[in-house]
Amino acid sequence: MKKSLGAKTVAYPAPAFVVGTYDKAGKPNVMTAAWAGICCSSPPCIAVSLRKATYTYGNIIERKAYTINIPSESHVRQTDFFGIVSGKDNDKFSITSLTPVNSELVDAPYIKEFTLILECKLLHTIEIGLHTQFIGEIVDVKADESVLAESGYPDIEKVKPIIFTPGHRTYHAVGKYLGKAFSVGKEIAL
Amino acid sequence: MKKSLGAKTVAYPAPAFVVGTYDKAGKPNVMTAAWAGICCSSPPCIAVSLRKATYTYGNIIERKAYTINIPSESHVRQTDFFGIVSGKDNDKFSITSLTPVNSELVDAPYIKEFTLILECKLLHTIEIGLHTQFIGEIVDVKADESVLAESGYPDIEKVKPIIFTPGHRTYHAVGKYLGKAFSVGKEIAL
Repeated sequence: MKKSLGAKTVAYPAPAFVVGTYDKAGKPNVMTAAWAGICCSSPPCIAVSLRKATYTYGNIIERKAYTINIPSESHVRQTDFFGIVSGKDNDKFSITSLTPVNSELVDAPYIKEFTLILECKLLHTIEIGLHTQFIGEIVDVKADESVLAESGYPDIEKVKPIIFTPGHRTYHAVGKYLGKAFSVGKEIAL
Repeated sequence: MKKSLGAKTVAYPAPAFVVGTYDKAGKPNVMTAAWAGICCSSPPCIAVSLRKATYTYGNIIERKAYTINIPSESHVRQTDFFGIVSGKDNDKFSITSLTPVNSELVDAPYIKEFTLILECKLLHTIEIGLHTQFIGEIVDVKADESVLAESGYPDIEKVKPIIFTPGHRTYHAVGKYLGKAFSVGKEIAL
């Protein structure tokens, strides 16, 4: 029996992405965002939605660029912190002792200690309501060699990204392997 | 040391959402999509990006509505299947013996056997490139009572959603609890 929960932003899994930007003065900032995801394969694009009240919103409008930094479970405290305080009043890099690295491709910083980074140029700005959606073209992905699989792609079991649960407001790790995509369903198709 | 992987759609975690629609003739269809995520809190909205070549694309253009059905790990084979074959030539409900239920709120069907459902009305259609992004307003969320937590929200450990890994093309389960959001980072802020 299904119960109606009302009009809520409850969809699982949601990501916990850390958005890296520079402000007008060139101070690097990071904030955590969950209203985000890949939105196009060609050009490769990722969308992230922010409230106008966030410091990062103004930074992206100004610099037309951002990075998406994928946190590992070992950085769950820092990731949560990045979503609690504003960069307007805090230098989140120095408080957490993480290291900003200047992207050579886009006008934004990324976090040296995070193992998987997407460098993005702002392509579209979509006004939806409380949130504005920024669609950024992914111009490069950078990964620590230590997290790469034999395929050349980052291994999710090494990256250990954080899963955010909206509504319930919890973080979880990635769990057991369930199967190969575009493969485990083939037996049904035959 | 970071390695450049090029411009790729690699961001972890990605969801595996099953999109439910009706075609012109009223045949219910489902397809799996990973380029998706919540994109606004008010109005509550979820975005899903599809290629024009998909059967679901035409259905959403026609019906201005869709459902997002959150698969559990027990349905990983069916979920993969829904992303492999087209609804143009297949009745995916009858092949998988899953049951379409007509939404009373939007012009789309949902999957009875899935425990978490979002019913969406099309709000915006954004042309990005290979993919078109459909932004839908979530008019209701329905969940099986068996997956609800005491908070009234679905418990991710009971829903057991599937995590998709782009590039590497694998499915994983949700793993261990890492902490409470908007809480575990507070000790850094103090």
